Amino acid sequence: MMNQIIETIHIDRLVKNFAKAPHKVGDTHESDAEIIDLGKGVPNYLAVTTDALVEEVSSGLYDDPYFIGWMLAMSNFSDLAAVGADPLGLLLSVSYPSNGKNRFAERFAKGVSKACEMLETYVIGGDTNHGEEPLFSATAVGLVPKRSILTRMGASVKDRLYLSHPAGLGNVYAFLKMSRMNVRLPGMLYKPMARIKEGKLLRYFASSCMDTSDGVLHAVDTLMRLNTSQFALSSDWARICHPMAYRMCRFKSIPPWLALAGIHGEFELVFTVKPQRESRFLEAASKIGWDPILIGEVRQGQGITIKNTNGNVPLDTTAIRNLSEQAGRDAQSYIRQLVQIAKETGIA
Amino acid sequence: MMNQIIETIHIDRLVKNFAKAPHKVGDTHESDAEIIDLGKGVPNYLAVTTDALVEEVSSGLYDDPYFIGWMLAMSNFSDLAAVGADPLGLLLSVSYPSNGKNRFAERFAKGVSKACEMLETYVIGGDTNHGEEPLFSATAVGLVPKRSILTRMGASVKDRLYLSHPAGLGNVYAFLKMSRMNVRLPGMLYKPMARIKEGKLLRYFASSCMDTSDGVLHAVDTLMRLNTSQFALSSDWARICHPMAYRMCRFKSIPPWLALAGIHGEFELVFTVKPQRESRFLEAASKIGWDPILIGEVRQGQGITIKNTNGNVPLDTTAIRNLSEQAGRDAQSYIRQLVQIAKETGIA
Repeated sequence: MMNQIIETIHIDRLVKNFAKAPHKVGDTHESDAEIIDLGKGVPNYLAVTTDALVEEVSSGLYDDPYFIGWMLAMSNFSDLAAVGADPLGLLLSVSYPSNGKNRFAERFAKGVSKACEMLETYVIGGDTNHGEEPLFSATAVGLVPKRSILTRMGASVKDRLYLSHPAGLGNVYAFLKMSRMNVRLPGMLYKPMARIKEGKLLRYFASSCMDTSDGVLHAVDTLMRLNTSQFALSSDWARICHPMAYRMCRFKSIPPWLALAGIHGEFELVFTVKPQRESRFLEAASKIGWDPILIGEVRQGQGITIKNTNGNVPLDTTAIRNLSEQAGRDAQSYIRQLVQIAKETGIA
Repeated sequence: MMNQIIETIHIDRLVKNFAKAPHKVGDTHESDAEIIDLGKGVPNYLAVTTDALVEEVSSGLYDDPYFIGWMLAMSNFSDLAAVGADPLGLLLSVSYPSNGKNRFAERFAKGVSKACEMLETYVIGGDTNHGEEPLFSATAVGLVPKRSILTRMGASVKDRLYLSHPAGLGNVYAFLKMSRMNVRLPGMLYKPMARIKEGKLLRYFASSCMDTSDGVLHAVDTLMRLNTSQFALSSDWARICHPMAYRMCRFKSIPPWLALAGIHGEFELVFTVKPQRESRFLEAASKIGWDPILIGEVRQGQGITIKNTNGNVPLDTTAIRNLSEQAGRDAQSYIRQLVQIAKETGIA
């Protein structure tokens, strides 16, 4: 089922050229970060992930250097959060023009630094280059106990589907930014946090997990495909969507769930919990001051459904996800087509 | 002394924004790869490094996708070699235009794959993006025994200075390529290997080590500055320079040591060995079929000297290294000025 997704096809085409490392745990697509066995006697796996900001910068979606630094760090740590890892730190691989742009470098560094501080972790290395074209790539490394590994695999029928916190602000940010309604958004509205603390709890309780960096629906859809079952979403959007995302959608007469369907997410976690572990999980979450949001359940069958007054309506997530291939190139057309798909489903 | 070097100033300006990680071993500049303590009871340190190809690609120095892949992998593994690490694998962070360039992606992947195969290691993950501007960044991770850590620090007076294999081909490649003498160079002439096998031996024998990715002189100069002593080079270039580099310089009437002075190196290792360990080191090297090249010794004092008929001639390596700041932008002028400096020293 994964091979219906254009992005997956692109990745597989590259990956087929590479031999599989014997010390790598799991296959491509099966976890947000790579899980590496460091050998017998070592109690932890190494979790490592790399993520670059490309379309986000070239499209103008991210234009503030502090924000670019923040997002670069958070996007990498979010992948560690989704495998339940404790971060060891971040390596930067960056390039920008050297002439007079020292203020850019400084503000960028401060964004990275603040993000690391918020997560109680560090920049541990990097490579700086100078070139006309900006380059913002990073790698996060961490450790996860071998006994409590968390991946995208392991959801099964009757599992409860959760979201770490209300979501959808990422898409609202992108919508406003690409609509040129430039109201000094970053910092004010949208400054997402990687859910490291939550991930460290989830490694003991969740059966599968993925971050929402490409949107909530994208994460739910990937878990559905990898675990070949039906993921049924509830539709009380006022509870699932971030209040600001919910109000913005209502104000614009857009179905609120589109804030979860767009490709520009945030760093929440979508995860499943076995029903018999649910009460203990919620108790443990409550102890760290965390109130996870139940958004649905895993059922027999396939695909994504959304509950509305007519029962469970199937959603063509393949079409929605493949639409996102053009999001970086033509944001206006992407949003238009997304709204069109939403209208056709009849889900309000 | 490090703060005389423009590149170092740039890095320090960025690094000063970041808090130092308590589990990071050593300071910035002190090793080719970052050394991370994974906690008590774990016998190895994690070695991790990130390196992007920016100027090399934008200047046209690297234009063959297979070669770009090869160099991206080797440059990262070379940093692991210089700290004596066993590689666990490579993560790629790449971006290129998506339309029709699948052959590019495939050839690039094959270059990476072959490089990994040659070093008996693997691609373990990555991030693929699509954008107009190419992006080639990678991260290599490995392990090094805590008992036998190898860094740039630890050289002292009377240490013997070695080079892993004859060098200088990197600069000859760059010279020919930038002079538009395009004789289908990559693969034929210049396909440098990271010295992983050698590094794994050096972690038991060397007192300091650095790779020659920015040239041999750059590495010797950095070791000199970090260990505050004089590094005296011998001048039998026919033995130190790669035969093809030596002949090319003679043919062009350029002093052969300029092949070691330019900024475009290869992946050899420059290292120091304590005199009392030298014979056991050479014996161990011989057993793995390796013949390291003695290129000088560490003395009391400061700076780099080159032995010629007039004794030990001091070399203004600060000027040579800072000249390289313009190498990516104006290769012709860089080479001209390098030759000029060489003439002024009188070292043939």
